[in-house]
Amino acid sequence: MTKHSDSPGFGGVPLPGLGPEEEFSLEAARQRLGESFAPVPVPELAPADPELDRAVAELRRLREATAALAHSEVELGDIADRLAEVADLLEPRVPTPEQRLEMMWTGAGTRRSNPVGGQENPIAPPVKFFGCDDGSVTAEVTLGPVYQGPPGCVHGGISALIIDHMMGFANHWGGRFGMTAHYEIDYRSPTPLLQPLTFRAWVEEFSGRKTWTHATIHAGDRLCVQARGLFLEASVPVPGKPGARSTIADAP
Amino acid sequence: MTKHSDSPGFGGVPLPGLGPEEEFSLEAARQRLGESFAPVPVPELAPADPELDRAVAELRRLREATAALAHSEVELGDIADRLAEVADLLEPRVPTPEQRLEMMWTGAGTRRSNPVGGQENPIAPPVKFFGCDDGSVTAEVTLGPVYQGPPGCVHGGISALIIDHMMGFANHWGGRFGMTAHYEIDYRSPTPLLQPLTFRAWVEEFSGRKTWTHATIHAGDRLCVQARGLFLEASVPVPGKPGARSTIADAP
Repeated sequence: MTKHSDSPGFGGVPLPGLGPEEEFSLEAARQRLGESFAPVPVPELAPADPELDRAVAELRRLREATAALAHSEVELGDIADRLAEVADLLEPRVPTPEQRLEMMWTGAGTRRSNPVGGQENPIAPPVKFFGCDDGSVTAEVTLGPVYQGPPGCVHGGISALIIDHMMGFANHWGGRFGMTAHYEIDYRSPTPLLQPLTFRAWVEEFSGRKTWTHATIHAGDRLCVQARGLFLEASVPVPGKPGARSTIADAP
Repeated sequence: MTKHSDSPGFGGVPLPGLGPEEEFSLEAARQRLGESFAPVPVPELAPADPELDRAVAELRRLREATAALAHSEVELGDIADRLAEVADLLEPRVPTPEQRLEMMWTGAGTRRSNPVGGQENPIAPPVKFFGCDDGSVTAEVTLGPVYQGPPGCVHGGISALIIDHMMGFANHWGGRFGMTAHYEIDYRSPTPLLQPLTFRAWVEEFSGRKTWTHATIHAGDRLCVQARGLFLEASVPVPGKPGARSTIADAP
């Protein structure tokens, strides 16, 4: 796998000339950049509604700040009142969840709304995704206390969540797709909170409808978690589009 | 495993007389209720700060409402401004993440702050946990669009997150403890959003430091996900308490 130290431009070089309708894939990157290139960040899709992105960004600030004030001396009654006022304004305007599921698939699918990387999702951690020339994908993230399991450590299920998503992204980058069928994780050492973590995933093997994908989490040079997944080509119906089916599992 | 249909009082009967310092465990339940009892809900710990719980509850309303308004006609600029004002008030008062990690372990540990069931955690889904007389634990939850992976379905990583936590809870209920060492999931059929899901977990076997725990997710009678975990007795240092170590992995 590509190491950061081999890639001085890590994350600094967007894939040039990629149109919004084109797949962010190893093949597209090779056509533009040749066989060897520094990791390219996933291009940000233009927001469907910049104010939505801003509201979600504020909710992320609020989630971190509010959780951080637990067991402190700060009075939160007035804060709760102000948040309630905003929620009271919004809720009457909310479409039904069923309508929401339909609307979600009218734009960029779940790429902007998924719970791992979606800029429109208030629970998503601040993960940055990159595609690498060796066929792997990487992500960088530092996780705060809302993601805690054991003291000072990332919750094992949060590691599992991000890895599952990363493996879907690795499949996408490698031109494969599929839904997770089987997934195994080995926790090798504690995954620290508040330190930069590197997630990596790559397609290890494929055959017919099956894709085997591997992944790791490192804190610096230390291996924290290893994982393997089996993905099967499959599709599910798209809500609100009779007859339409989606093969999208976990888009980056 | 206990079925809902066998348990007319499902969730309705709190474990009587359990003091706040006592373990919520099968053994404690048997001492009070005998060998056979309807599923007992995990007792709510008294909030350290009721205003914190209220602020977090408002943030959960806001996360659902804001995500639900994506791709709608509703203008969110004013909402974003109001949220920014509140975040601006809070952030200067936030302790450092390191201080926060210490404070988190002064009260009820992560029981109220963890990312699956914690009332103090703005990203936690609305899961309700129960202990059963056959040694299993169950949880009920209906997940909305912020937890979506494939269209209309729960993100596979979100299933993995909740199951990991449930297995830790099953160990706790059964008087075992340990950190997740190895974890396997089989996705048998799509896990639907917006429908009540039943999570179940139980200690299957144990020996010395090892505990093997199994889990399932059902939508009605349909099996969506099966999982198995191996847990090892282990401890990690408690932030801010030199020499202290915690064996708590995922408390309910």
